[in-house]
Amino acid sequence: MKNEINVGLLGFGTVGSGVAKIIDNHQQDLQHKLGVEVKITKVLVRDLTRKRDTPLQQDVFTNDIDEILNDDSIDLIVEVMGGIEGAKEAIESSLRAGKGVVTANKDVMAVYGPELLRLADDNKCDLFYEASVGGGIPLIRTMEDGLASDRISSLTGIVNGTTNFILTKMKQENMSYEDALAKATELGFAEADPSADVDGIDAARKMVILASLAFSTEVQLEDVLVRGMKEIKDGDVELAESFGYTVKLAGHAEKDEDGIAVSVEPVFIPDGHPLASVHNEYNAVYIYGAAVGETMLYGPGAGSLPTATSVTGDMVAACRNLLLGMNGKRSHSPQHERKVKSDDKRFSRYFHRILVKDEVGVLTQLSSIYSEHGASLATVIQHPGEEERDAEVIFITHRMSRKQHLDVLHELEETEVVSSIVSHYRVEGDERL
Amino acid sequence: MKNEINVGLLGFGTVGSGVAKIIDNHQQDLQHKLGVEVKITKVLVRDLTRKRDTPLQQDVFTNDIDEILNDDSIDLIVEVMGGIEGAKEAIESSLRAGKGVVTANKDVMAVYGPELLRLADDNKCDLFYEASVGGGIPLIRTMEDGLASDRISSLTGIVNGTTNFILTKMKQENMSYEDALAKATELGFAEADPSADVDGIDAARKMVILASLAFSTEVQLEDVLVRGMKEIKDGDVELAESFGYTVKLAGHAEKDEDGIAVSVEPVFIPDGHPLASVHNEYNAVYIYGAAVGETMLYGPGAGSLPTATSVTGDMVAACRNLLLGMNGKRSHSPQHERKVKSDDKRFSRYFHRILVKDEVGVLTQLSSIYSEHGASLATVIQHPGEEERDAEVIFITHRMSRKQHLDVLHELEETEVVSSIVSHYRVEGDERL
Repeated sequence: MKNEINVGLLGFGTVGSGVAKIIDNHQQDLQHKLGVEVKITKVLVRDLTRKRDTPLQQDVFTNDIDEILNDDSIDLIVEVMGGIEGAKEAIESSLRAGKGVVTANKDVMAVYGPELLRLADDNKCDLFYEASVGGGIPLIRTMEDGLASDRISSLTGIVNGTTNFILTKMKQENMSYEDALAKATELGFAEADPSADVDGIDAARKMVILASLAFSTEVQLEDVLVRGMKEIKDGDVELAESFGYTVKLAGHAEKDEDGIAVSVEPVFIPDGHPLASVHNEYNAVYIYGAAVGETMLYGPGAGSLPTATSVTGDMVAACRNLLLGMNGKRSHSPQHERKVKSDDKRFSRYFHRILVKDEVGVLTQLSSIYSEHGASLATVIQHPGEEERDAEVIFITHRMSRKQHLDVLHELEETEVVSSIVSHYRVEGDERL
Repeated sequence: MKNEINVGLLGFGTVGSGVAKIIDNHQQDLQHKLGVEVKITKVLVRDLTRKRDTPLQQDVFTNDIDEILNDDSIDLIVEVMGGIEGAKEAIESSLRAGKGVVTANKDVMAVYGPELLRLADDNKCDLFYEASVGGGIPLIRTMEDGLASDRISSLTGIVNGTTNFILTKMKQENMSYEDALAKATELGFAEADPSADVDGIDAARKMVILASLAFSTEVQLEDVLVRGMKEIKDGDVELAESFGYTVKLAGHAEKDEDGIAVSVEPVFIPDGHPLASVHNEYNAVYIYGAAVGETMLYGPGAGSLPTATSVTGDMVAACRNLLLGMNGKRSHSPQHERKVKSDDKRFSRYFHRILVKDEVGVLTQLSSIYSEHGASLATVIQHPGEEERDAEVIFITHRMSRKQHLDVLHELEETEVVSSIVSHYRVEGDERL
């Protein structure tokens, strides 16, 4: 039996340095858990000359990835370098060399996850990726193990901390979107180019990973319906509040006999729903299982130490498997063929905010468009137009298909008295109330 | 390699029948996950003549436990019979016979957990107990695996659904304690004799299990400070609300260099804290890790199918270990010696509600008692007495030790102008605000 496990670390940014710190701080606990020492023996960095505040010796750093991948004494690779193609190649080479891999890279896992997991299976290596979604929240493990015997029917998640921080500030402090984004950037929650966050791309990648696992099928990024923060119009957050809802950029994935549906978009969540209380940069995923019912996992969605905690948790699992000779023994092959639901099979309630000319009989005219499409209305509110301004009409529908929703919107747009459709939202999670 | 795993089920109540249902419903998924069939081949029941609505064949039922324990073809025992001594013996015999055990029995695990886990280690068998705490919430697994590399500094949990249901009704619907308890009984959330729930004993047992695991030490039931629902006095729930708090019966466990402190008692939780939004029969545990920061796991704390989901999750893990020949390979020996904090090392904020004679200078007199004990006050409110009624004084303190809290209360009780101490609470989780 080995008496130490050597780890090669690819990347030494916030997560990588956090991993080194945790391994150093918790060496004694890890020894107790595993019975061996876990040592970071090589670290890939770009700039060898940079001074680093780290417990690691200077001589472990290298800028030559092959020095790590070709080192037979290294059992486990931890990929925290980021990027897509380079990271993918590094993971492939590691697995081919028979090394287990732990990655925090959602971009790689969203695009190449199924392919890499197959490669891991073929090479009898572990490939763990807990930190790729939800930072410090043990989501992947819970779905793989904790709910192993349950059939997950849907999951709804706040999986992007930046946009949740922005929406929290907009609601709680009446900040404008621009001010809230500036604040997020100042506090380090938003990147210099925040488009992947605010356009919903980051959340979509995470939903691909979660939905693939939850439904044991190969969900692809193109399967995800994505609408970003720009769909939220002035006044929407307050309007939602007046109806008892909170606007969240949420991912949603569901599966039934008609297939899967995955989306990321701003939605209305009822204020009593636990997801409505997920504030600031926190993340949470609400899971509906056939047997377990509703479960929610909540925690920090990003950050150096939370993410490093998930990485190190994976490292412990991978080390344990290595020591027991059971690495790569868990099959990742998807159980179900990928089948995406058509729009007439995706059901939800919807919120429509429409600007109309302030004429007699407008409401009747618009309501009839809904009934023509078989859509029934739960709430209809008309705010009378002030001088030279159009009137505003709000419709909240009962459950209807996305096809009905789009057909109604399309016909509304063509209608004379409609000046514009200001905004529209799916209403999430109303079924539990 | 085996092509099936035979399971003996001890008990066929709500959880046991739920397990049989899940195994039957998900046989295909289980086969995919494990590559073998999982079969319940024997079930211990008291009454063989009773008609049962179950997918199992009639001939699997027996009322002779030895028929199960002595059956060499049975690899895994699932103990869902309840009770303490009988269940303990059954688990012991199973482990001695080399069979893995999955149990949902918090009573046994709270009292005999360390002893049984040692026996499991000695016999190289798995002993899993996810369902013993938090029903369908994967708490044990998250602490064992997900946060494996983190140092848990404290956890606060709503781990009893009955009392949380009662407190939710008291707050949201202004029900009296008696009416809320009657409602809980009617809905099946409270047992005929609810004392283990309302006195905090059930929660204390769960906290023993969670704290032992979180801190890798053998916490005992006698280490837990327990105060039950009867400490909540008329008007306390509304009073808490007026100060921005929610009253919850919460378990709390913390550890630092001075040792551990574990308690179950009614506490004030700030309304913005995620635990304040855990309503009705739901459970949640808020975990503070040195690295991960704050994580919360939320879900159904009881119920046939949620609990059975956790049991079945454990069964899958145990079966996987059996198939891979790695059962019982994880040491459960506690890493740290048990050391309980003294009252002068347990710090918190406190809420004191005191009935006083309505005299001039009362407030000054009482405040001076706090300062004499080095306790500083955050809030002082006096409600003037109405005719023939005493005045009421509320103190909310800054952080102080439990010793200071008890010393102050003791001295207040001895003070002439104090008619009585109506109630007192620890204020939980204020540090995060």
